[in-house]
Amino acid sequence: MSNETYTLIIGDLSRELPLVRPTPNTRLPLVEFLGDTQLSQAAAKATLPLIPTDTDMLFTCETSSIPLVHSLAELMNLPYEVARKRRRPYMQDPIIQDVQSMTLGVGETLWLDLRHAEHLRGKKVTIVLDVVASGGTISSLEKIVVRAGGKPHGRVAAFSHGQPKMDIQVMQQLPIIALD
Amino acid sequence: MSNETYTLIIGDLSRELPLVRPTPNTRLPLVEFLGDTQLSQAAAKATLPLIPTDTDMLFTCETSSIPLVHSLAELMNLPYEVARKRRRPYMQDPIIQDVQSMTLGVGETLWLDLRHAEHLRGKKVTIVLDVVASGGTISSLEKIVVRAGGKPHGRVAAFSHGQPKMDIQVMQQLPIIALD
Repeated sequence: MSNETYTLIIGDLSRELPLVRPTPNTRLPLVEFLGDTQLSQAAAKATLPLIPTDTDMLFTCETSSIPLVHSLAELMNLPYEVARKRRRPYMQDPIIQDVQSMTLGVGETLWLDLRHAEHLRGKKVTIVLDVVASGGTISSLEKIVVRAGGKPHGRVAAFSHGQPKMDIQVMQQLPIIALD
Repeated sequence: MSNETYTLIIGDLSRELPLVRPTPNTRLPLVEFLGDTQLSQAAAKATLPLIPTDTDMLFTCETSSIPLVHSLAELMNLPYEVARKRRRPYMQDPIIQDVQSMTLGVGETLWLDLRHAEHLRGKKVTIVLDVVASGGTISSLEKIVVRAGGKPHGRVAAFSHGQPKMDIQVMQQLPIIALD
């Protein structure tokens, strides 16, 4: 079973993704942008058409989405902000927002330092994630945008596991593999 | 006091860095690569000459160093790996390594999934961080390289706070500002 993979194809690029097991009877392909600059760039190019053209800023959370969003920000010449999953000692008056993540099976908390929240104010902000499942993380990021005085402008993910339950622009849907 | 900044200059690029307060009587300039693709690229270009030329792979830990290492990996056409600071649910037989970080004032733990550790085996691995202080994180990353069967090949940081106590190639030293 450990040698099972799923073949991901984006344009000319392909990757054999390992299958991970969120529940005993299902398998999910694991996409990892960290460490793979070619995959990040290919996915950024393929995801670019989904970003609303008048977006002022991209917004994501750590960690796995960072290479994708970094590559997209370079392609579009846009700034981006990253909500943290742990409080950092230098944060001042951070926005603190709970999130219920199906992927982790536990609640988490997102933190955005006031210095960074100020960058969102009055801006048209598009949220970008590497992979969405339930959409819980996107909802929480959107709440942070509103609390920071920004305007939620789009929801984009490179990949989804199954069909998202909310309105999200997805570049490629990955299968949820059910086993007997 | 909150308006104090430190002017960082890298080539043609400059940034006004906020000063943070690790202890009541000191201030440190806060460098943040997340969200700043221009700073990441400029620092990557300036740090590039410090990477040993026969490096097979770069190695860092999440989160703040990722944009720098991503940009360096693109410039050098090298793969990189990222040790995580939290266990991820999909990890299998991860290498688990404690680190004593002066920056956080508490111990942390680094995790590297076996699938990624296997990429380090037999490779000449250069460790790259955004900012070093005591060098505790670099030491722990080096232990992971050895445990994974890789060859520690270099220690590089874009910035240091003060003079590092170990042999590390540093692109630019940032001041530790002592107050009366």
